[in-house]
Amino acid sequence: MSDLRIAVLGVGMMGADHVARITGRISGARVAVVNDYLPEKAAEVAAAVPGARVAIDPFDAVAADDVDAVLLATPGPVHEKQLLACLEHRKPVLCEKPLTTEVETSLEVVRREAELEKPLIQLGFMRRFDPEYQQLKALIDGGELGEPLVMHCVHRNPAVPPSFNSAMIVKDSLVHEVDVTRFLFGEEIASVQIIRPAANPAAPAGLQDPQIAIFQTASGRHIDVELFVTTGVAYEVRTEVVGELGSATIGLDVGLVRKSSPGVWGGRLTPGFRERFGTAYDIEVQRWVDAVRSGVNVDGPTAWDGYAAAAVCAAGVRALESGERVTVELAERVGA
Amino acid sequence: MSDLRIAVLGVGMMGADHVARITGRISGARVAVVNDYLPEKAAEVAAAVPGARVAIDPFDAVAADDVDAVLLATPGPVHEKQLLACLEHRKPVLCEKPLTTEVETSLEVVRREAELEKPLIQLGFMRRFDPEYQQLKALIDGGELGEPLVMHCVHRNPAVPPSFNSAMIVKDSLVHEVDVTRFLFGEEIASVQIIRPAANPAAPAGLQDPQIAIFQTASGRHIDVELFVTTGVAYEVRTEVVGELGSATIGLDVGLVRKSSPGVWGGRLTPGFRERFGTAYDIEVQRWVDAVRSGVNVDGPTAWDGYAAAAVCAAGVRALESGERVTVELAERVGA
Amino acid sequence: MSDLRIAVLGVGMMGADHVARITGRISGARVAVVNDYLPEKAAEVAAAVPGARVAIDPFDAVAADDVDAVLLATPGPVHEKQLLACLEHRKPVLCEKPLTTEVETSLEVVRREAELEKPLIQLGFMRRFDPEYQQLKALIDGGELGEPLVMHCVHRNPAVPPSFNSAMIVKDSLVHEVDVTRFLFGEEIASVQIIRPAANPAAPAGLQDPQIAIFQTASGRHIDVELFVTTGVAYEVRTEVVGELGSATIGLDVGLVRKSSPGVWGGRLTPGFRERFGTAYDIEVQRWVDAVRSGVNVDGPTAWDGYAAAAVCAAGVRALESGERVTVELAERVGA
Amino acid sequence: MSDLRIAVLGVGMMGADHVARITGRISGARVAVVNDYLPEKAAEVAAAVPGARVAIDPFDAVAADDVDAVLLATPGPVHEKQLLACLEHRKPVLCEKPLTTEVETSLEVVRREAELEKPLIQLGFMRRFDPEYQQLKALIDGGELGEPLVMHCVHRNPAVPPSFNSAMIVKDSLVHEVDVTRFLFGEEIASVQIIRPAANPAAPAGLQDPQIAIFQTASGRHIDVELFVTTGVAYEVRTEVVGELGSATIGLDVGLVRKSSPGVWGGRLTPGFRERFGTAYDIEVQRWVDAVRSGVNVDGPTAWDGYAAAAVCAAGVRALESGERVTVELAERVGA
Repeated sequence: MSDLRIAVLGVGMMGADHVARITGRISGARVAVVNDYLPEKAAEVAAAVPGARVAIDPFDAVAADDVDAVLLATPGPVHEKQLLACLEHRKPVLCEKPLTTEVETSLEVVRREAELEKPLIQLGFMRRFDPEYQQLKALIDGGELGEPLVMHCVHRNPAVPPSFNSAMIVKDSLVHEVDVTRFLFGEEIASVQIIRPAANPAAPAGLQDPQIAIFQTASGRHIDVELFVTTGVAYEVRTEVVGELGSATIGLDVGLVRKSSPGVWGGRLTPGFRERFGTAYDIEVQRWVDAVRSGVNVDGPTAWDGYAAAAVCAAGVRALESGERVTVELAERVGA
Repeated sequence: MSDLRIAVLGVGMMGADHVARITGRISGARVAVVNDYLPEKAAEVAAAVPGARVAIDPFDAVAADDVDAVLLATPGPVHEKQLLACLEHRKPVLCEKPLTTEVETSLEVVRREAELEKPLIQLGFMRRFDPEYQQLKALIDGGELGEPLVMHCVHRNPAVPPSFNSAMIVKDSLVHEVDVTRFLFGEEIASVQIIRPAANPAAPAGLQDPQIAIFQTASGRHIDVELFVTTGVAYEVRTEVVGELGSATIGLDVGLVRKSSPGVWGGRLTPGFRERFGTAYDIEVQRWVDAVRSGVNVDGPTAWDGYAAAAVCAAGVRALESGERVTVELAERVGA
Repeated sequence: MSDLRIAVLGVGMMGADHVARITGRISGARVAVVNDYLPEKAAEVAAAVPGARVAIDPFDAVAADDVDAVLLATPGPVHEKQLLACLEHRKPVLCEKPLTTEVETSLEVVRREAELEKPLIQLGFMRRFDPEYQQLKALIDGGELGEPLVMHCVHRNPAVPPSFNSAMIVKDSLVHEVDVTRFLFGEEIASVQIIRPAANPAAPAGLQDPQIAIFQTASGRHIDVELFVTTGVAYEVRTEVVGELGSATIGLDVGLVRKSSPGVWGGRLTPGFRERFGTAYDIEVQRWVDAVRSGVNVDGPTAWDGYAAAAVCAAGVRALESGERVTVELAERVGA
Repeated sequence: MSDLRIAVLGVGMMGADHVARITGRISGARVAVVNDYLPEKAAEVAAAVPGARVAIDPFDAVAADDVDAVLLATPGPVHEKQLLACLEHRKPVLCEKPLTTEVETSLEVVRREAELEKPLIQLGFMRRFDPEYQQLKALIDGGELGEPLVMHCVHRNPAVPPSFNSAMIVKDSLVHEVDVTRFLFGEEIASVQIIRPAANPAAPAGLQDPQIAIFQTASGRHIDVELFVTTGVAYEVRTEVVGELGSATIGLDVGLVRKSSPGVWGGRLTPGFRERFGTAYDIEVQRWVDAVRSGVNVDGPTAWDGYAAAAVCAAGVRALESGERVTVELAERVGA
């Protein structure tokens, strides 16, 4: 099957990241068309992608015959029209958040899509694909925490751009916890309260930071979220679900940690080499492919490394048999 | 640039894993030819890869015009001849360990490659590509541990196949620590001692397990390795380097942990969303590409999820302004 | 100086625990008088304490000439009168929480004490003496977190007695976080909100559990507290302070953990053997004292253990000199 | 029962620490006699202990009628004679390591004690009383690790005095791991090997540091110990026991951590407030006793703290009932 041809609309930080992802790490797809509000930015990005062309008009990109699907990374205010164009041309679209910037227009997009025979729009709430959130979801759905009762979330950024304002903390940061809540608990949020503590002295004047958001779900579950975007420290996203039978936390840099009866805490050990070194294998093979394509051939351990390992292991086998220390003899170094 | 066409020789567990990797997760390459000692196994694997064909003879595969490079995952005893064929046909090759099964033949392969103008052979010591080993290497090379003095390694498997014998613990397991030692310390191993403790009662009769290997490097550094392949617990690979200025450990399931003056232990926090959610983005886009290619279009959050998030965030902005609890009103559910 | 003679009023679980503490682990004090609402309970406790006598009336105990100080572990409703008696007789008193059960009577006790030349009443908020809270306080006071902004607390019990009701979660559990807030932040709490999520199905009917308490301090700091007393899991008391320059958490079973710029997390390593084994030394000597007083003489390693260690170390010194394995020769076992 | 009257022989760092321990933290005993090679040092220490007197001659101290037991913290070379004096006078003695400095004299002491009807000598291997070693011992004895097979130990000091030499690393540091091995495994050590890696450049010239000690027990178990006494970092004492059914590690600053089938790691949660805050209660009461004895009366939370807590909790109960935020009203500050 031939590769999926994708038009990427918007190649700011997020969109450019997606272009690099599709080009260098995703199998079965390629970037066919690049569009941006700034044509020179689009041209720069497209120049680095073999086979990609620039489209000046995003609607031309959506409509083009050499485009099978659209990745939407433009600013929120233009999403509505671009999504409707995708629906009109029956192009599947992966849309970075938000769907649109207004509740009414979001609902309108939902309704228009529902008139079609198949869904076309996927939202970019990437946390649903994060292995830790997946584990937490599995734990909840498998009943291992019993009835989930309370969730505590922390969302911290070291810094935000100067243009960031208090409402953006809700719309750009809290929105992830909104989706996490709906994803993990499988129900809608019924009410929201936002507490405004004394502000961080290091935050820009006028920015209400930190904020504490409190959700109540339809069935009465409590969720609290600390939003703090000027910590100066690091990117910290943490979620603890407290249920009838115990609690589980992700985002502690140690994988999912459970606390459960009879009074033990712990996590899961890596079961095998695939889980432990799967990423290393992916990087190894990708770097080898890149090295061979560029004519360098080798970007990793050499044949000499293989010989040296063989010599040490041969000595090791003799040491195993004798129980004595065995000296390793190596030939004079040859080759790379 | 067109995709690199790879012949995979040997599609047992490891080789089949590489076929899946190249086909589904690696960009810029595809499996063109599949070969195995069991032709029906090769046929089965090739059938699942669009555009792949079977080669009955591994040497035909190496020589073939539609093969740019070779991935060698055959049993060790046949490596020598297959590697020499790759050298003869100037085909770059990624060779799973061991290089060959004998020290002399390993050295012969190294010498033959050295006669060519460019190296062609890369060894599959994948730990060098593991992010934790990379961090540990960077710490050592950056001088942050001072002079490295001692290394403690643990290599534990829950179980091994019935055919496993005591010498294989050295050749198949310890070989990784041999390469890790050479990679991290950048010098050769001068001597090996293997201690044989009382055996695990749960190990098969006659298997010397656990074993303790002790290396001394050319400059006098000490490395000890616990090899224990019938633990019944999990896959544990742990490395602690102790240097003049502190120590660092990887493989604790919590990233690299340092202990350094003035008496603090700790690790690095995730600096940004790319590091935290980079893998989630990769999975998200790969699954979306797969969904669109298969005609399902969506395999993740839907437009309704985007609408619901917009509605909660709009309530959140009102809650931020008022300081009061705000009820969320959602339209009746539409669409998927 | 002679030992402080203490009257313990109330020897339920908490009071009996204090009697054992004063008798077996506290230096410079002894229990002189035991009083309880149930005279047979007082008699039973006093019988196990050399030199202690029973007082039938708590006011007689307070007034007695052979009582230097009072430890008050009676139920809250009788505190007011007993505290006033202590003030009248100028007896220092360590009063388990609450001071009294009504705000007005509490204030009255404070005023009466203020009329004396010296304070006499200490409250039993023991968390202020916990090494982890002490470290957290020192971190805040030393300015290492910058301005403290937000605090998250968790207070979980595996279970509560059948008589426990929703208000007791506030008065008996939350009261500790009230004091922790005042202790750590050095200011008063200005407002309280209590959120009532859907109750734990495993909680007794009618018990509002969990509860979420939200404090705002006079200067606008935010504190939230999860109170959950029927978790079935364990006793978990956790406190995270988030400040302008980073955050610190205690109660994770790993000591105080900080997250601070430049993006590192970690804790303090044990600086020396006193910190690491100080408790072991205390236990060692206390058990030895008890063994000698009871005539057993030894309750720990014997002279033979000392001989065996000497023999191994002597072999070790020879092994250090020779670099070879040295066999340890022990005499035939003698003595205990 | 009257307090045990102890003579402390040797009041250098360790002995002075024991005097402070017996005087301030141990119940049922007091220091009656202080002796030291330097009489002025003995006088200084005794002056700070009510009721203690100085003995110029250690043998007089052992023989004295007002001495019930002896704590021996003198240098190793004088232990033999002082222990024999204790045996002669039938005085129980807690002897800091070593028993004596020679294997032969150690055995002689053991034999002399064995001629008496009761043992009198306890050795100061304090790790046996450390809660983590106790837990590890319980885990092994309870069969939870199956047959113990291998043990890895780390013993690191930040620095040692200038007089420290290579053999002292064996006799003063390794001796603890000798006792730990014998304590945990319940059998004798059959052989010792000491590996001498390239020395730490930061170590004093001529000091063989680090050293790696390897023990084999009578039944063939393997123990390795890293001894490294010039790390510049901290005091690290770590022990991992690897058994047939899993492994357990102590000394990681996180309590005992187990790794066991089916592939989980973890520790035990604090079961109740006694375990969590037991030390805090001890400190609280000891400090209160000290405050009352010194006439200060209060060294902790005051009556006002009790009143303020009562006021917040009363507001909390109203907040629980109403679901609304409730303002806390405090009287004007009175008293301390």
